[in-house]
Amino acid sequence: MGDLPREDTANMLRVLVATDCHLGYMEKDEIRRHDSFQAFEEICSIAEQKQVDLLLLGGDLFHENKPSRSTLVKAIEILRHHCLNDKPVQFQVVSDQTLNFANAFGHVNYEDPNFNVGLPVFSIHGNHDDPAGVDNLSAVDILSACNLLNYFGKMALEGSGVGQITLYPILIKKGSTAVALYGLGNIRDERLNRMFQTPHAVQWMRPESQEGCQVSDWFNILVLHQNRVKTNPKNAINEHFLPRFLDFVVWGHEHECLIDPQEVPGMGFHITQPGSSVATSLIDGESKPKHVLLLEIKGNQYRPTKIPLTSVRPFVYEEIVLKDETDVDPNDQNSVLEHLDKVVNLISQNFQ
Amino acid sequence: MGDLPREDTANMLRVLVATDCHLGYMEKDEIRRHDSFQAFEEICSIAEQKQVDLLLLGGDLFHENKPSRSTLVKAIEILRHHCLNDKPVQFQVVSDQTLNFANAFGHVNYEDPNFNVGLPVFSIHGNHDDPAGVDNLSAVDILSACNLLNYFGKMALEGSGVGQITLYPILIKKGSTAVALYGLGNIRDERLNRMFQTPHAVQWMRPESQEGCQVSDWFNILVLHQNRVKTNPKNAINEHFLPRFLDFVVWGHEHECLIDPQEVPGMGFHITQPGSSVATSLIDGESKPKHVLLLEIKGNQYRPTKIPLTSVRPFVYEEIVLKDETDVDPNDQNSVLEHLDKVVNLISQNFQ
Repeated sequence: MGDLPREDTANMLRVLVATDCHLGYMEKDEIRRHDSFQAFEEICSIAEQKQVDLLLLGGDLFHENKPSRSTLVKAIEILRHHCLNDKPVQFQVVSDQTLNFANAFGHVNYEDPNFNVGLPVFSIHGNHDDPAGVDNLSAVDILSACNLLNYFGKMALEGSGVGQITLYPILIKKGSTAVALYGLGNIRDERLNRMFQTPHAVQWMRPESQEGCQVSDWFNILVLHQNRVKTNPKNAINEHFLPRFLDFVVWGHEHECLIDPQEVPGMGFHITQPGSSVATSLIDGESKPKHVLLLEIKGNQYRPTKIPLTSVRPFVYEEIVLKDETDVDPNDQNSVLEHLDKVVNLISQNFQ
Repeated sequence: MGDLPREDTANMLRVLVATDCHLGYMEKDEIRRHDSFQAFEEICSIAEQKQVDLLLLGGDLFHENKPSRSTLVKAIEILRHHCLNDKPVQFQVVSDQTLNFANAFGHVNYEDPNFNVGLPVFSIHGNHDDPAGVDNLSAVDILSACNLLNYFGKMALEGSGVGQITLYPILIKKGSTAVALYGLGNIRDERLNRMFQTPHAVQWMRPESQEGCQVSDWFNILVLHQNRVKTNPKNAINEHFLPRFLDFVVWGHEHECLIDPQEVPGMGFHITQPGSSVATSLIDGESKPKHVLLLEIKGNQYRPTKIPLTSVRPFVYEEIVLKDETDVDPNDQNSVLEHLDKVVNLISQNFQ
C-alpha cells in the first residue's frame, strides 16, 4: 500500500475500478482468443497486489449473454484464483442485502459461511451480458450463483410503458468512511432517457440518517453502462439527468479510456470512464492506452490513481493521407499497398 | 442412519447412486419445465437426509451440452444448497488427484480450503453433456470449475485411430473400507467397442499393494454411460468386455430403472441400472417407478437399498388393442378417440 500509513487505511475504502472486460471476445480467433482473459487476469492481479477492499466492474464482463463453456470456465477459474482466500474483508455492507443482490441467496458473497471470499467483486451487467429469457437472467447471474461475484443494479423492467425503477444503494462502511454504491445495469438508452424525463420513474433511495452518520456523510457512487457520446441525443444518456447528490460516477460501455475523473460543471460530481480492457472495435478511441483506476475514499474525499494495463495487445490507429505522401501514386493500387505495408512494418518494428 | 450402530458406519462407505438427471429437459415447456430440477433436488435431499458420504452420478446431469443460463443457475443453486455445509467429510481420497480430476485445480472439491463442502458429488459425463469444442469441455466442467462437483472419467481421445485410454481409479478410504472408483464418461459405443476389442487400448490401473491393504482388499466400482440394450451389438457395450476384477457397475444412459443389482454370470460383478430421474422418451421403460440406490460398502461386502423418488411426474404407459374392445369401431375415428379419452381420464382419476 506504499505511502499510506496503517491508520489511514482503517478508515479508507480502497476500490479498484475496471469495466468492459468482454470475456470471450474473439474466442475463436487463434491469435486473439486469450486477450480478454489475460487482461481480466491482470486486473484481478492488480486488485490483489494493491490489496484493495473490492473490485468494481461497470458491465460487459462477458462479451455474449450466452457465453461458451470455455469462457464460463475461464471466468470462473480467474475469479476463483484471485477472489477466494483467507484475506479478511475489512468493510461491512449495512443495507438490506436482499434488495441489493437479486439472487437466490440474497447476501454479499463474503458473508456466506461456506466460502472464503478475500476479494469481493461487484458488477452490474452491460448491454452484452444483459438479462434475458423467461427467468430474466444475465450471464453474470451464473457467477453470482457460484458466489464468485456480487451482481447488483439489475432492475425489474415491465414490458410496456415507461416503467419505474428504484435504485437501492449498497451501503458500505469501513471505519468512519461510508459509501453508498448505486448500480444501474444497462437499459436501452431510449428507454432510460424517457424514464429520466418522466417524473418519479427513477427513484433514488437515500440512506437514512443515523446517529453519527448523516445523509450528507455518505459518499455516493453510481456505476452505469450506457452510451455517453452524443452522436444522437436519443441514443445516449445526458449526465445532467443524474442526481446532484452523487459524488462520483463510473461510466461503463464507452471503450475509450478517459479514466481521469472529469468534473461535470454544475452537477457536483466527477465521472471516470475507465474504458474497456480489450479493444473490440478498430477505432481511434480503442487505441489509447488502457488503464484501471484505484479509487481511495476517505470520508467525503477521494484520491484517484490510474494504473496502466500492461497485458493488453498493442493497437495503433493511424490516418494516412495519400495526397501528402510524395512517393505514392494514389491511382496505382500497388503503390498504395506498398506504402501501407511500409507503414505497418514500421509500427511493428517499434513494438519489437 | 436407522439401524446402523455408530461403530459400523466408521468403516462403511455410504454412497447414493443416481443418474441421467437431464437438467433442463423440457425447460421451455410451461408444465414440465421444473420436473428435472425437482427430481435432482429430491435426490440431493435424500443424500442429505440419509447422511451419505457421497453422491455418485452416472452422466447426463445436463440435458444439453450448452445448457441455458437458467439451467446452469438452477443446477448451481441446488448443488450449493445441498452440498455446501459444515458436515465433516469422513473419507479420504488417497490416489493421485491430478490424474482423477482433470480441471485447473486438480483436487477433490472438499479438500479446497476456500469451500465448505459437506456432501461431495462425483459425476462422469454422459452423451448429452459430453466434452466438445477446442478446449474439450463438458457442461459438467462448469460445475467442476465452481468446485460444486468432482468431474471424473474424462478421457483424452485422439481424433483418429482406435486410440488408447487409461482409467485411473479414485481411491477412497473410510476406516478399513477401501473403494476404487473407476469412471468412464460416455464414448461413442462403436468406438468403445473397437477399443475393448483392441489389445491394450483400454488400460485399467489397479491400486498398488500396501501394508495392510492388498490389491484384493479394494472394492472396485465402475461408473459408465453407454447403451446396454443390444438392438445392434455395434451400438451397445457388452458387459463381458468389462474386467472381472470389478465388484460393482453403475450403468448410466439406460433410462429404465433396473436398480436392483443383477449378477452378470461368469463375471463376478453386479450391475445396477438406476435409470433416469426424469422421463425423456414416451416408452414403456420410462414409465416404471424411478428410484435411486443407497449403496453401503463395508470391506468387500455391500448392501443395496433402493429408494423411490416421489417427486417424479407420474407417467403411465398402456397398450390398447382396438380389436379387443367390443364397444369400439376401429374404422370410426371418433369412436376410437372417444375410447382413448375414456382410458386417459380413467388413468388421470387414479392419480387424483
